Amino acid sequence: MNAIDPRLSINQATIKHADLATALRVTAEAGVPAIGLWREPVNEVGLDVAASMLADSGLRFSTYCRGGFFTVPEGPVRRAAIDDNRRAIEETATLAAAGAPGSKAILVLVAGGLPDGSRDLAGARGRVRDALGELAPDAAAAGVTLAIEPLHPMYVSDRAVVSTLGQALDIAADFDASVVGATVDTFHVFWDPQVLDQIERAGREGRIATYQVCDWKTPLAADVLLSRHYPGDGVIDFASLTRAVEATGYAGDVEVEIFNADVWATDPRVAVQRTAAGFQAAVSPYLRVPVAG
Amino acid sequence: MNAIDPRLSINQATIKHADLATALRVTAEAGVPAIGLWREPVNEVGLDVAASMLADSGLRFSTYCRGGFFTVPEGPVRRAAIDDNRRAIEETATLAAAGAPGSKAILVLVAGGLPDGSRDLAGARGRVRDALGELAPDAAAAGVTLAIEPLHPMYVSDRAVVSTLGQALDIAADFDASVVGATVDTFHVFWDPQVLDQIERAGREGRIATYQVCDWKTPLAADVLLSRHYPGDGVIDFASLTRAVEATGYAGDVEVEIFNADVWATDPRVAVQRTAAGFQAAVSPYLRVPVAG
Repeated sequence: MNAIDPRLSINQATIKHADLATALRVTAEAGVPAIGLWREPVNEVGLDVAASMLADSGLRFSTYCRGGFFTVPEGPVRRAAIDDNRRAIEETATLAAAGAPGSKAILVLVAGGLPDGSRDLAGARGRVRDALGELAPDAAAAGVTLAIEPLHPMYVSDRAVVSTLGQALDIAADFDASVVGATVDTFHVFWDPQVLDQIERAGREGRIATYQVCDWKTPLAADVLLSRHYPGDGVIDFASLTRAVEATGYAGDVEVEIFNADVWATDPRVAVQRTAAGFQAAVSPYLRVPVAG
Repeated sequence: MNAIDPRLSINQATIKHADLATALRVTAEAGVPAIGLWREPVNEVGLDVAASMLADSGLRFSTYCRGGFFTVPEGPVRRAAIDDNRRAIEETATLAAAGAPGSKAILVLVAGGLPDGSRDLAGARGRVRDALGELAPDAAAAGVTLAIEPLHPMYVSDRAVVSTLGQALDIAADFDASVVGATVDTFHVFWDPQVLDQIERAGREGRIATYQVCDWKTPLAADVLLSRHYPGDGVIDFASLTRAVEATGYAGDVEVEIFNADVWATDPRVAVQRTAAGFQAAVSPYLRVPVAG
């Protein structure tokens, strides 16, 4: 068995077709110390049961996916989205309390795309900030950090109007850094000519809530959502990005989150092993800080 | 017959399967005053013949596509690329001289992606600047403007390591604005949270060599290169982008360049008509400056 990096976390999306029990089991059995969970499989068993299962697994809880999708204008749909985010905040706090020592209460936020029929990117972006203004008090009260995730610009119209780390930091700047931070995901930011400067800025401003890694290669999958690859299988320079994140003092878990039909069709035990091996070869050499206890 | 905007130019890629004679004929017969040509169909008939055909068409020549693809390290492949760009510069000058009054000598540059097996984006980006340093004297001597085209970040690894207008302007800054400028293409830049500021900057620095329009919608085509649409068929806000370009004083032709299998399968006369109609509805209302004579 290969060595497992003590800072590796498996994001549950990497083994999407595993239910919660299976995801926890294969992650723990592989010797991976942490996991990032998704709402759907948690709510499938119920929050309290999920928290108990997580506690029994002995795994650290690294992030919760996901909140957001609050770019629609005011009205019942927006109210439902805000309420749903409030539930996600509570779930995040509950799960973080159930995880092993070192667990974090971090809710990853994907902003949402343009509302149907709209061409108003600036307006949608403004509504992201407005939503954070509504949710920040709840997050602060629950001890949860909202981690705005800039998504690759190819998703700007249908998934996330937050497209760069710099933009996420500009939005976060109105809020306390313990309440609103950013998700730094290599797949989404590696292309950005400003990425190293913005990682340095994110660290200086205390905003790196979570660091996630997966790889990019072309041709992109026909469904571009599913174009993510094991670290090392593509063209991303994990050395420069990881060193930049480490240089900020970030000492948390590093999640691998892969949306890829081939990975999803793999036995989840094998997918976790391959993830750990790719991580060990492509990312671990650049991690200098042991995981925070 | 609908009105044709006097600043509309058909980029030849929109009617990719038309040969040069057909492209010139359908463009002129539609009453469109300008055309942007591609090297392959020009070289198919030979430069002198192409120049003569262009002169006979009575069309303005708005840009030439394309140079670039010079991200590989030093060696015979790089030398061949530089030499090929020198030929493209000469071709640009010849065609611009043959076009109707108001023709421009603008060579659009697509930088090229990561060399095979490389993960060094910064290195590839540095070699773009180096290549411009080699080519700028030739361009200046020929009276040609090299128009760096930032491409959407989804093309960063396999097509263009220049991903934002700001990055293109940073690269151009080392050179005289009459020699190195930028291509502003709505499809490639509309997502950028900084785009309006960078258009203003591009104007202030005298770098807007050409303004190109086409639309974005999802889902993206399975081959993401072919995801471009007629203006108005997608989600791009042509009002804010076009007003920003116009506010800089840009008074040149506005090209429509569409890579799309359905558009290519359309009779070129019909494709030109549909392009003109989309332009008239989605772009023309925001053009305030008549085309420069």
